[in-house]
Amino acid sequence: MTTAKRDTYTPETLLSVAVRVFNERGYDGTSMEHLSKAAGISKSSIYHHVAGKEELLRRAVSRALDGLFGILEEPGAQRGRAVERVEYVTRRTVEVLTAELPYVTLLLRVRGNTKTERWALERRREFDHRVAELLKAAVADGDLRADVDIRLATRLLFGMVNSLVEWYRPHPGADTDREQLADTVVHLAFDGLRTAR
Amino acid sequence: MTTAKRDTYTPETLLSVAVRVFNERGYDGTSMEHLSKAAGISKSSIYHHVAGKEELLRRAVSRALDGLFGILEEPGAQRGRAVERVEYVTRRTVEVLTAELPYVTLLLRVRGNTKTERWALERRREFDHRVAELLKAAVADGDLRADVDIRLATRLLFGMVNSLVEWYRPHPGADTDREQLADTVVHLAFDGLRTAR
Repeated sequence: MTTAKRDTYTPETLLSVAVRVFNERGYDGTSMEHLSKAAGISKSSIYHHVAGKEELLRRAVSRALDGLFGILEEPGAQRGRAVERVEYVTRRTVEVLTAELPYVTLLLRVRGNTKTERWALERRREFDHRVAELLKAAVADGDLRADVDIRLATRLLFGMVNSLVEWYRPHPGADTDREQLADTVVHLAFDGLRTAR
Repeated sequence: MTTAKRDTYTPETLLSVAVRVFNERGYDGTSMEHLSKAAGISKSSIYHHVAGKEELLRRAVSRALDGLFGILEEPGAQRGRAVERVEYVTRRTVEVLTAELPYVTLLLRVRGNTKTERWALERRREFDHRVAELLKAAVADGDLRADVDIRLATRLLFGMVNSLVEWYRPHPGADTDREQLADTVVHLAFDGLRTAR
């Protein structure tokens, strides 16, 4: 028996249900039926809010991408030496990732089977590219090691940052937590774990 | 129409087919039917080699785990200062991961629904724990920063290393490649990207 709830969803709250289901079942493995069951409203009620599953995906990954690209517009990413800007962007990326965890998780799991997924992958690559450019500028300034391949360093840096979606789980009132996490990522990536030699 | 091949598989070659299918479809999503199709032999031929799907999983993740735990027995992991040992283990982990890419990929995607999967997760945690112990010893020696939470550092270190399975693709004769990759990971993790200040 399906107990239909009264549809009190806003586009925002419906999105958060959809993202949870996408992350649990994978986007490909999610049907409108699954979404309807998880939301407790009929499929036609869902169609009242959105054109379909792909629109929900687009909105969800847009939220993650807006968060990430927003960082690049912040003063800390725009002003100062390249090395300070790239450290700032790294720190803020951790913060956005943990604050928007389900949305960024979904973004990072996108595979590229639909137009929206290909667009999301393209935007992700663009973000990585922007960060790689900053790293390159910091190497040119002599602030970052010149003996490390930038493309490789960018991948490893994002590998480390993005791994958070696999194990980071926010606690209530986790702001300090999140700050400590961002600090650790920045220290590890830029200063390394070793004490000065 | 299924064109049945003559069954010329060894346990090794059958395993490599199974691992490819597990990585493509997920372990849960793979049936004996899928394995039979991918191998081009009948299900009963597969049962001639192994008791079932779970045995294939166990053999595959054992190969990855044996590779990883083998590192800890090597002289470089046993002798010398803790910081040198943990750098050695990090470097060798990258090498094992890239050399045994499909097997380690499967290991890292294990979810814990079956007995074999839970065992694999348990062994992975044990490996991480052994590395965390080395990191802790290196902090006690004063060689690694004491202001970084070890549990967090271990997770970030493995986050970076394990991310390789998402994007590393070996080339023929990729040994130099692999060495450069291992160097970069070790530099990034222990010395950081910054030039000395």
